[in-house]
This record gives sequence, C-alpha cells and structure tokens, in this order.
Amino acid sequence: MVDAHLVEAMLTELAHHGAVGESGVSRLVYSPEWVAAQDQVADWFADAGLRVERDAAGNVWGFLDGSEPGTAIVTGSHIDSQKPGGRFDGALGVVAGALALRALREQDGRPRRTLAAVSLAEEEASRFARTNFWGSRAITGAIAPGEAERMRAIDGPTMAEVMHDVGLDAARLPEARRDDIGAFIELHIEQGPLLDAAGVPVGIVERITGYRQYWLELRGQANHAGTTPMDLRRDPMAGAAEIISGVIATAQRMGRPAVTTVGRMVVEPNGRAVVPERVAFTIDARHPDPDALALLLERHEGLWSEVARRRDLDLHVRTDSDRPPVASDPELVAALAAAAADAGVATLPMTSGAVHDAMQFAAVCPIAMLFVPSQGGVSHSPLEYTDPAAAAAGIDVLTRALRRLAY
Amino acid sequence: MVDAHLVEAMLTELAHHGAVGESGVSRLVYSPEWVAAQDQVADWFADAGLRVERDAAGNVWGFLDGSEPGTAIVTGSHIDSQKPGGRFDGALGVVAGALALRALREQDGRPRRTLAAVSLAEEEASRFARTNFWGSRAITGAIAPGEAERMRAIDGPTMAEVMHDVGLDAARLPEARRDDIGAFIELHIEQGPLLDAAGVPVGIVERITGYRQYWLELRGQANHAGTTPMDLRRDPMAGAAEIISGVIATAQRMGRPAVTTVGRMVVEPNGRAVVPERVAFTIDARHPDPDALALLLERHEGLWSEVARRRDLDLHVRTDSDRPPVASDPELVAALAAAAADAGVATLPMTSGAVHDAMQFAAVCPIAMLFVPSQGGVSHSPLEYTDPAAAAAGIDVLTRALRRLAY
Repeated sequence: MVDAHLVEAMLTELAHHGAVGESGVSRLVYSPEWVAAQDQVADWFADAGLRVERDAAGNVWGFLDGSEPGTAIVTGSHIDSQKPGGRFDGALGVVAGALALRALREQDGRPRRTLAAVSLAEEEASRFARTNFWGSRAITGAIAPGEAERMRAIDGPTMAEVMHDVGLDAARLPEARRDDIGAFIELHIEQGPLLDAAGVPVGIVERITGYRQYWLELRGQANHAGTTPMDLRRDPMAGAAEIISGVIATAQRMGRPAVTTVGRMVVEPNGRAVVPERVAFTIDARHPDPDALALLLERHEGLWSEVARRRDLDLHVRTDSDRPPVASDPELVAALAAAAADAGVATLPMTSGAVHDAMQFAAVCPIAMLFVPSQGGVSHSPLEYTDPAAAAAGIDVLTRALRRLAY
Repeated sequence: MVDAHLVEAMLTELAHHGAVGESGVSRLVYSPEWVAAQDQVADWFADAGLRVERDAAGNVWGFLDGSEPGTAIVTGSHIDSQKPGGRFDGALGVVAGALALRALREQDGRPRRTLAAVSLAEEEASRFARTNFWGSRAITGAIAPGEAERMRAIDGPTMAEVMHDVGLDAARLPEARRDDIGAFIELHIEQGPLLDAAGVPVGIVERITGYRQYWLELRGQANHAGTTPMDLRRDPMAGAAEIISGVIATAQRMGRPAVTTVGRMVVEPNGRAVVPERVAFTIDARHPDPDALALLLERHEGLWSEVARRRDLDLHVRTDSDRPPVASDPELVAALAAAAADAGVATLPMTSGAVHDAMQFAAVCPIAMLFVPSQGGVSHSPLEYTDPAAAAAGIDVLTRALRRLAY
C-alpha cells in the first residue's frame, strides 16, 4: 500500500515551485518555477532508480527498462498548472508515476515490459491561450511545423522564444516524438463532483468526452435604448440570450453526461443605454458518446441559425476546437478493474468530461485513466483538494495494474 | 421662415469646436473645446441683440427682456456632446434659441414677457459617468451639496477641479439657481427613427419617458465546463440569459412605447471552459406612462426574483437611476400645435424615449419639447444627421410659439 503521508509530502514539495498563497500554484510552461519543478521530478525519478531522460519538449522521463524488447507502458501527467490552479491537477499523476515505478522496482525488480513515468511539459493552455497539450503532442508527433514560432504567449513571446530561454531548441521538437509507446495510463483528479458525492475513492474512466468549442458573433444595429421601438430593433443581446437559454436547455434535456457551457461573452459597445451592435460568446459542448455528441451539436447549430435568421442578425460562427470522444482500451480497463479488486478499493466506472493528455496518446496507443475525488468537484482553483488517502488508493490501483501488465 | 442654410452654417461652425473626423464632435464639459463653443454661443447671443449672462455653472444665457415683470420663457439645450457624438444632439437646440430670439427681436421688437435662450453646460454624462444634467440641475437647484467635489471624471479629476480649470468656482454653484423661469421649451433631434420613417419634419412631445436603470448581479458557482453535470450547476449565465430573454419579451408584448434594453454585461471569470461564477448586467426599462412603467418594472422584478430563486443563484439588484415620466404642459403643447398650423408644418404627437434637460426644468416650471427627424434614427454617433430644412421648420415652429406666448 502506498503511504498517503508520502503522497502529501511530495505534492507539497512540488507545490513550492510556483506557490500562490497557502494552497495555490501558478506554474506556467517554461517558467523558472516550471524548470525547478521538472528538476525536482528528475531527482525523484533518479532516486526511484529509473533511467532519466529529458526530451526536446522538456518532458522528463523515468524508465524502468524491461527484459523483453518491445514498446513501453507509460504513466504520467502534466507538470504545468492553471494561473493559479491547485496542487493536484496534473501534479498528482506525476507523483503517482514516480511512486508506482519506485514501488515496482523495489518490490518486483526488473519488469518484462519496459515501464516509464513521464512528467509532461504542458497541458493547460495557461501561458499560450491558443495551444495546449504541448508535451503530449510533442511525443505523439502532433505539433505542426512552425507552430512554436507562430504561437504567442499571453505575455508576448513565442513558444520558440520561451523554449530558448530554458535551453530548448524548437527546431528539434520533432526529436521528442516516440514510436515505442505501447500503452498510456494517466492518473488524474476528477475535477468534477461525482466521486466525492458517491464517497468512492477511485474512478475508472471508460471514455473521455468529445467536445466542440465555438465562438459565435451576432451583429445587429446599435441604437439608443430609449428611442428605438422594440419591434424595430436588431438586438444581438436578445438573440444571444435566446441562443444561450436554448443550448443550455438542450444539454439539460439530453441529460448526463451531456454538458453545454457559455463561459465567455463580449458586448460592444457595452453601454448601459445602448442596444448593442455586437455580442460574441463561446459555446462549449461535450459528450463522450460520438452519436450523442453529433446530435447535441446538430441541435445547437440548428438553434442558432434559426434565431439569427428570425431576428435578422448577422451570425458568424468559428469552430476553435473539435475533438472526438476517446474510448479507453478495454484490456487496460480490465487490468485496472482487476487491480482495484486485488487492492480492495471501490471504484466507479466514469466518463471524463475534462480533456486530458491521454486523449493525445490515444492517437498512437491504447489508453486508460484513473480518477481520484476532487472535494466538492472544485478544480482549476487554489481550493482544489484531494484526500491523500484516496490519492494513495488510486496510486495503489495504478501500481497493481502496471504490475499485471508489465511483469 | 428660418433660413436652412444659416442653420446648417451655424451647426458647422459649432462643430469645429471638438471636431472628430468629418462629421463627429467630442466636446466634453469644461474642456477647451467646450469653452470655445460657449464663447461662440455668447457671440451669437450678443449679435442677436440679447443681453448675455454666464452663470456659476458655465451656462450661457441670452435675454430678450420683456416689458412686463414676471417669469421668463426659456428655450435652449445642451452644448456638450457624446465622445464622440454628432453635431446635432443638443447643439441644434442652442442654435434654435439664438435664431428664434434674433428673429423675434428683429421682427417683433420687445416682448411682453421676458424671453431667454440658454446653452446648457452639460447633459450627456460623457465626461462624468455618474452625473449628468449638470447645467439644468444647477439652474433648477438640483445639485447636491458636495457633489462637485465628490464626482470624478472618467479621466480622473473631480467636477470641482475641472470647473476651476475654466475659471468657475464650484462653491458658487448655488448662485446659478433661478426662480424666474416660467416655461422651458426645448428643441432637440428625435434620436429615434419615427419622424424620419413617417416623413414628418416636426414632432410635438407630449410626454418624456420615465425609466429605471438596474444593475443586476447573479452569483452562482464557478465550475469546470466539462466535469460538472448540468443538473448540479448553479450557472449565473443560464439565469442571466433567461432573465434577459424574459425582460425583452415582456417589453415587446407590452408594445410601443415600452422599451427594455440590456446593453452592458460583465462575466467572471469569463473563460471559455468555465461555468461563470458571476454575471452582472444592466437593465434599462422605459415607459412614458406612469402606470405602464410601474407594470413593466413590476413584471421585470418578479421575473428575476423567480429565476434567481429557482436556479439557486444569489441575486443583488442595485437601482442606478429612477426617474418618473414627465408630461408636457398642455398649454405649451397647444401653443406649439397652433404655431405649427400657422407655419403649415406637419407634426406628429410623440413621446420621448430619451431623457432631456427639459425633464429637469419640469421640477420648477411647465415644459414642452419639439423634435426634428434623426435620419435612420441614428444618434450618439458621428453619423447623426438631420435635414437642415426639417431643422429650420422646427425652429420656425419654435419661433412662432414663443411669439404667441411672449407678445
């Protein structure tokens, strides 16, 4: 059994790098805090007796080489954080990798199949708003040529420039790509309320949600709020409100796990006594089932087209992200379930409504995920919290599953 | 008949002070452009043979003294502009005052009752977001003690400081108050589309709208957009959309002239993948009939209370402005209608959906207003335009009405 105090101590140690207040962390990719955290992880991997490598994207690897040739079974997560986030999101999966592989090396020695722990460079899009999964995309070969030179951080410089600042060469990013990965298992906090509400320490993720993120712009005509009769208005706020109510109601009617969110809105000219000229907003719609996702999106798209036409508003829709759902590999899921049964740990089969690095790995190998509870469902916040006992239970299940797969 | 070319020439001359681009004007109260414009107006009043006075608020007066003692009949409007606005809003009423009193002095000589033209210091709230009607409130005694010291401009200084910069002493503001005003008639552009659409040059305003402006804050719980099931959310965006759709539909169902506008919204944290924690927005609701306004507001308030309760959202409502409707004086309206008939000018009885200085004067004397068409209903914009022939027709009606009242 993994020591919950040790899990807590390692998370606390990692949280020093980029600490914000009592419990927050702001650790943006390629920042000095990020460098210190990856150095910390490399030390942990070395202390665990793993062969440490750093790749061209700054991902840190710890290998426990197997006796047989073939692909590696990899576990890990990302080391970067929201701005600020908490100390568990991503970090727990990195700590889990170090602890699991150390336990296996100490208790079981050399595996048949190679095992690896990885601390991925970036997942959160917290420094570069329009690019994310930087670490896992480097490994799976999904970074486009020129992307590092094109993408600018919220604070100004390009990805290539901030890589250069920490001794990395963006031109060598293709060297980070690997074709020796046979499976990827990620342990992560749930970032939702279901495990906490159910009082179950571990979730086994059967599907990761697919989603599409839209940016809708409705344009009408700016008018004086007092002098323009309602029936002569082309009011984009009225159209936006109708669309937002409609898409939210559609997701509610479809039922769990369909979700649709409007999180961001911009109004112009944004004056108290002016009918707006332009209202723009995001729509984020998710479902882990491909057919249900298609139906959800079809209903959303039908609604906003109809509303814009009826209200005589100009509608421009941009699709910013579009990812199909990813299914966990049945054999990996079976191994996780068997490991949980061995450990006597209760589990809940789940879908992930959040996106994860595992989705990137799904393009090149079978994947699976373990969730541990997020207290109150809170995440992307300094208030994020996971009971160390539940985290340790999750790491125990991970360790046992890796043993089943690699020995 | 007033010369349309002269009206156009005077508006063009005034528009040089604070010109923005080809047709825009940005003339904030107590700015150098404002000083130049008021000097221009004082010259016009003097050229018209009027006795010029400047009061403690910087209002410029031109008196045509009557042969009998008693109160004055005043006409005018404001000299300040939106940032930027057009060359007609306010300015046309000042030009109208100068032209009407010049014509009366030249054609009819000394009146029985004293006539006055006034160029009011400020109406637009374009420099001080939280105070307006500065000129008319100084005259009617509606400036609160200490208000000039308390109110800060959008660019930083207090009202008292910017007054000091142009040689005015805020401590002397009470001296601007007058108790010798017997009537106030304001000529203004409609700022709405109705006269233009009807092809009628002059509107006689029977009522000025009452309105209430609210600032609603809905607070729920910020959550991850993917991991929080719809049925567990406390989403203030969903509540805001329902309230906005509802209040707009209520005003539409009530029919003209009810109007309700949501022009400004702030979302926090305003992230694409986060259920918002807080959505705050303005609601501006107007009706010129006191009972209908009360009903409109009652329905709005009932709706948002119900939505907030049902969605388990914390609701905070602040009332920022609350003004009852103002009725024009029947005798003044009759004089305007008779004057229009004399002149052979077609008129439309109207309500004003915008607020005007005349509302302030209503606290101390009978008031009335004349509207002239705004092309396309456009106002508060450099694109604001009124046909000089219609403006001249309006000034002609004003002149004839003042003759009826004062001679």
